[in-house]
Amino acid sequence: MTVPGRSIGIGLLGTAFMGRAHARGYQGLASMYSPPLLPRLEIVAGRDAHRRNDFAGSFGFARTTGDWRTIIDDPTVGIFDNSAPNDLHEEPTVAAIEAGKHVICEKPLGRTGAEALRIWQAAERAGVVHMCAFNYRFVPAVRKLRELISSGALGRPLHLRARYLQDWLTDPDAPATWRLDADQAGSGALGDLGSHIADLSRYLVGEISEVTGASATFFDNRPGGAVTVDDAFVATVRFDNGAIGTLEASRVAHGHINDLSIEVNGTLGSARFALERLNELEVDLPGSDDQRGFRRLLVTNRNDPFMSAWWPPGHVLGWEHTFVHELHHFLGSIEAGRSVRPYGADFEDGYRAALICDAIANSAATGRVAAVAPAGAVPSGARS
Amino acid sequence: MTVPGRSIGIGLLGTAFMGRAHARGYQGLASMYSPPLLPRLEIVAGRDAHRRNDFAGSFGFARTTGDWRTIIDDPTVGIFDNSAPNDLHEEPTVAAIEAGKHVICEKPLGRTGAEALRIWQAAERAGVVHMCAFNYRFVPAVRKLRELISSGALGRPLHLRARYLQDWLTDPDAPATWRLDADQAGSGALGDLGSHIADLSRYLVGEISEVTGASATFFDNRPGGAVTVDDAFVATVRFDNGAIGTLEASRVAHGHINDLSIEVNGTLGSARFALERLNELEVDLPGSDDQRGFRRLLVTNRNDPFMSAWWPPGHVLGWEHTFVHELHHFLGSIEAGRSVRPYGADFEDGYRAALICDAIANSAATGRVAAVAPAGAVPSGARS
Amino acid sequence: MTVPGRSIGIGLLGTAFMGRAHARGYQGLASMYSPPLLPRLEIVAGRDAHRRNDFAGSFGFARTTGDWRTIIDDPTVGIFDNSAPNDLHEEPTVAAIEAGKHVICEKPLGRTGAEALRIWQAAERAGVVHMCAFNYRFVPAVRKLRELISSGALGRPLHLRARYLQDWLTDPDAPATWRLDADQAGSGALGDLGSHIADLSRYLVGEISEVTGASATFFDNRPGGAVTVDDAFVATVRFDNGAIGTLEASRVAHGHINDLSIEVNGTLGSARFALERLNELEVDLPGSDDQRGFRRLLVTNRNDPFMSAWWPPGHVLGWEHTFVHELHHFLGSIEAGRSVRPYGADFEDGYRAALICDAIANSAATGRVAAVAPAGAVPSGARS
Amino acid sequence: MTVPGRSIGIGLLGTAFMGRAHARGYQGLASMYSPPLLPRLEIVAGRDAHRRNDFAGSFGFARTTGDWRTIIDDPTVGIFDNSAPNDLHEEPTVAAIEAGKHVICEKPLGRTGAEALRIWQAAERAGVVHMCAFNYRFVPAVRKLRELISSGALGRPLHLRARYLQDWLTDPDAPATWRLDADQAGSGALGDLGSHIADLSRYLVGEISEVTGASATFFDNRPGGAVTVDDAFVATVRFDNGAIGTLEASRVAHGHINDLSIEVNGTLGSARFALERLNELEVDLPGSDDQRGFRRLLVTNRNDPFMSAWWPPGHVLGWEHTFVHELHHFLGSIEAGRSVRPYGADFEDGYRAALICDAIANSAATGRVAAVAPAGAVPSGARS
Repeated sequence: MTVPGRSIGIGLLGTAFMGRAHARGYQGLASMYSPPLLPRLEIVAGRDAHRRNDFAGSFGFARTTGDWRTIIDDPTVGIFDNSAPNDLHEEPTVAAIEAGKHVICEKPLGRTGAEALRIWQAAERAGVVHMCAFNYRFVPAVRKLRELISSGALGRPLHLRARYLQDWLTDPDAPATWRLDADQAGSGALGDLGSHIADLSRYLVGEISEVTGASATFFDNRPGGAVTVDDAFVATVRFDNGAIGTLEASRVAHGHINDLSIEVNGTLGSARFALERLNELEVDLPGSDDQRGFRRLLVTNRNDPFMSAWWPPGHVLGWEHTFVHELHHFLGSIEAGRSVRPYGADFEDGYRAALICDAIANSAATGRVAAVAPAGAVPSGARS
Repeated sequence: MTVPGRSIGIGLLGTAFMGRAHARGYQGLASMYSPPLLPRLEIVAGRDAHRRNDFAGSFGFARTTGDWRTIIDDPTVGIFDNSAPNDLHEEPTVAAIEAGKHVICEKPLGRTGAEALRIWQAAERAGVVHMCAFNYRFVPAVRKLRELISSGALGRPLHLRARYLQDWLTDPDAPATWRLDADQAGSGALGDLGSHIADLSRYLVGEISEVTGASATFFDNRPGGAVTVDDAFVATVRFDNGAIGTLEASRVAHGHINDLSIEVNGTLGSARFALERLNELEVDLPGSDDQRGFRRLLVTNRNDPFMSAWWPPGHVLGWEHTFVHELHHFLGSIEAGRSVRPYGADFEDGYRAALICDAIANSAATGRVAAVAPAGAVPSGARS
Repeated sequence: MTVPGRSIGIGLLGTAFMGRAHARGYQGLASMYSPPLLPRLEIVAGRDAHRRNDFAGSFGFARTTGDWRTIIDDPTVGIFDNSAPNDLHEEPTVAAIEAGKHVICEKPLGRTGAEALRIWQAAERAGVVHMCAFNYRFVPAVRKLRELISSGALGRPLHLRARYLQDWLTDPDAPATWRLDADQAGSGALGDLGSHIADLSRYLVGEISEVTGASATFFDNRPGGAVTVDDAFVATVRFDNGAIGTLEASRVAHGHINDLSIEVNGTLGSARFALERLNELEVDLPGSDDQRGFRRLLVTNRNDPFMSAWWPPGHVLGWEHTFVHELHHFLGSIEAGRSVRPYGADFEDGYRAALICDAIANSAATGRVAAVAPAGAVPSGARS
Repeated sequence: MTVPGRSIGIGLLGTAFMGRAHARGYQGLASMYSPPLLPRLEIVAGRDAHRRNDFAGSFGFARTTGDWRTIIDDPTVGIFDNSAPNDLHEEPTVAAIEAGKHVICEKPLGRTGAEALRIWQAAERAGVVHMCAFNYRFVPAVRKLRELISSGALGRPLHLRARYLQDWLTDPDAPATWRLDADQAGSGALGDLGSHIADLSRYLVGEISEVTGASATFFDNRPGGAVTVDDAFVATVRFDNGAIGTLEASRVAHGHINDLSIEVNGTLGSARFALERLNELEVDLPGSDDQRGFRRLLVTNRNDPFMSAWWPPGHVLGWEHTFVHELHHFLGSIEAGRSVRPYGADFEDGYRAALICDAIANSAATGRVAAVAPAGAVPSGARS
């Protein structure tokens, strides 16, 4: 393959769901975009030798390792991609940062706000480009929704309604995994799903000032062990700009397979998005007459976000394409020497999503409204 | 018209939106059902003489009055129907009760829980049949939803998601009316819309034990005066049976004209309803194969609730038919000398919905979780 | 009841489904509208004495009869309402016409175009006001759809897609009734359901010039006898204005209970309607930006067709309300001494719908495109 | 990249929309599947040197050429992939066949049935594996729909309703391209879109015996030249098994971007699919109770067709993934030395789709029902 531009070496930690999704993203971006910085798949780390070798073969990684430190030490690696479980976020990511590598880390950035803060601060100190993989920012319809809000088309936001509902734990025989263990995962639906909608709420409407919340674990024990995280939570939120809203996530919601949905109502109009129909955006904007009602847009036009690189209108994208857009954006940011913000989430965004999740957990535990620290406000001891 | 059975005289207070809806209900029920107790439209009370005379002419009321006390004193009246604004609920209703009339009162029963409690207790003392007009219990799809839950088809309820969104206050020039005045209305979206979903939440899932909430008034002033009630609220709820959920209502939600929607997720399945499509119920129940997903039912079969009296399948009902069902149920309860419970809401249900609204307002004001008194628990001083 | 205006006596033939629907319409219109001409329910005819007496009691008809000729001879009757089966359309309707009564007749007007033509011509000769009860013209969303087209908002019509699908014959044990007998019904899905969409196609897009078609009877025998009519048909149509389209009806379409749906695509925009959601209209019109896609309108605003008399926005209507609108229009036409056209269907419209159905049957039988006679073109011998 | 199995050289003709889609398919399949036969991207042919070189760079083709004959002569090429416009289907494909290469050709296989027949017969004579790229057979939901029908779950098919609607020619200023020229394209919406639904109709319900049709060209001239093909057609179809249905396609249907939709009603149930929501299938099957209605399935479970290779449930696929499935199937067929049938479309399927399109055009021209030759019936002179 003729490589038209510069390239950068990728070192990937994780060969499971997220590792595979990232690898597909690296693999798929060069043929649709002409990135100034092409990814070279140098090395992948995973515990199981057979699995990581298969993975490398499938995606074309040059080398594999059973020890993530090998990636840190690898001089051909310019980007450390952390697609590992939550309890492997802090140490490897900070090590990579300290080795001067650019870093992308899966969400939630940390199992707690404190952990996320340490990771963010390490990245800031080192001056590397950092990204928290909130990939749903890179759904064309979500980006379009943000543009509608930031352009003022919806007016002043009044309401947000965000939920992320799944059903995989409705089966009482679904086994306990690391995702159901507080030590490894930090929290359950809260950190796994809630962090996505916390991030999108900020991305779309703005900073959250306070929350109330309740959470529940409906199935305490499962084959393989105790469940030590929440199955679901509900929360109210209040934004700095006065809007109010609800957040909710569950892993026990029959009829919702992977249903992240979000709606914003503003003084002039409304818009809503649902991940299971990720090519669509419904908008209710003032029209040429006095009629109101949601209009279903298929966000596949050439001038829709991210779509100029793809197919003619109406030829829909899939879930994995969010990673193509996300990684393309990350590579472009590195090439340009700039932050991934505001369209990408950086580690500060990862930290702030964690703060919101912490506040919800806190409110659920105390029965009191919980404030979320304002953006820019870092606990005084944190930087020391 | 040949009257096949016994009849009872109706005295109606109110000739506006709700008065008209009730009158249509009385008028429309005899020809579809064969009620053992037929309504006779005796007298209607309203402030404006021209308007109440037109109203009487249209619906066939025999007499009109400008003073609701005339109804109380009228010996031909067996049922006092209170379709007046909220600040005219307590005094006329209690007077009618004390005159021995059966009573139906529009929601919210009282502007506060305390007011509702007094009305309920008066009715209990007098032994009359009493009904709070939560008409959405009488939507066929809502009743079917309740049957799905009570039969165990959905399993143990885990989540409820209820909201009632309207858009009529999105126009900043919409004038201030009694509905926006705290003295007359008690509260805004909370009592007007929130009371409906508080009632349905109890009707479908069971008693709520505690809530958290936040509310907002986005437009403080409108043509005609200050707005002294909430435009919107959000809340989390926890049920006695362990389920958690969210409640929300708004009058400033573009794209939602009269959108009461409610979803319940249980351990075995899910179901959801939306008022703008009131003939439909979406259910996700275990099927003959392993496939899950919402199935859209048109609740118009002969064996669906209330439908045996109507048309062949697929010939849909409208909003006003909820009053036909509700008033038919009320008349049947009177004839049988029994409570309207459990399918109808009585004044205790009106009181309990008010308690939930009070708790939400309380939590919004204090920033603390607010307990809802258990059913049966009446404040000690209340009965004195 | 104070009667504000003049009144006219109704003589109704038929106490089954359609008779009941018409009676509800007469009963329900006075309280919502203030018609200049009020219906007096004088007499109802039906074969079964017990049934017709019950019917009269329920709806308030003054008298009953077992012989429709009694209605014709009744001087108090100003309107003859024929809600009887198809084989009782011609003789009673023509007799009523010749007695000088205004007439409304259920669809299909005749079992064939020739029969419909005779009825139409009798009415024209007598100069009475005549209406063919194509009630779906009186769905607010359908009327709004017509206004969109006639105003030019959709541009020049290019496509029509109309179908009327039901499922009640999917059960092989569903019994043979008069509707499945060619002598009594004329045809099956074609005349019963197809006539509705033939009428709406003309109402919305214009005259049809030619058709091709195919039909099928999937179940030849049923409990109670042979099926001698079609279960379903499909057709292509070409309009005078150049648009092309498809018509289809079936009684054996699982998943479609009473699903009349119609879509029109024009050079500027599109709109579509489905009867199972009769309060909704989906439109794709040029908007304030370049985005296209169907917008869902809830046709319940005060300025929507027929809605000024009803409830606040979002309080939906049901199927039976089409009869309120239709009969109100009929009464108003009589009072004004004018034709029910163009918004109502008169007997010429009933005739022209029958011509389209005949042409479809003809094409299905011959395998050739069948022309539909132009409007105004009456077979030469017809008037003699 | 470690290549785990044997490989085969690809020679691709065409660098536009379809060439790109095929290239993405080849590129994307190895990392998700472990094909026994891996594609090697040897050479791509296109007229414009700059464009084909860019294309080769993006996708990793080793060589490029301006003359498709170079591919035919290239001994490293085992598969000739014809993604060129319709008038370049016959000659290059037959040349490749005669050179012993396996062939995949875009639809429509020929501009007429006669052309398609010649291509099919050449392939049969040569004994190569041949595939007509009806990629929508490889949508998971479409394959699942076929399985529902072939398993008998829907019962005997009674109705099919298939349409393929686009909107790109609603703009009168859309320029004339090769797709609007009868010489190059053969026909318009008929061959381009109609061939897809003709193929799916056969794939799902069975052979079509006869059709009627009408077609229209609404815009005769466009910037760049005359339009000599149809903008739209409508047709009725009759199947060998007695089912009847409608086919329709248009390029001037506002509100439909790329809307291929298909519904089948059988004696036991119904199912429907729409391409703009390609991860969904709606089914109405007998359930555990007597309730009927469409259920929305998200066809993303591990046991759904093609999904075992992809993501957890609810992580949706896009349009381009149909090519991954299609080309994986083609490679597997070659490796196994068998036909692509019955799940893939071979050149006989391409021929039969062309026959249906020809019959529709014939009926539209003559006004008579047109028979479709039975499968297996090849015109006597054809093989000579």
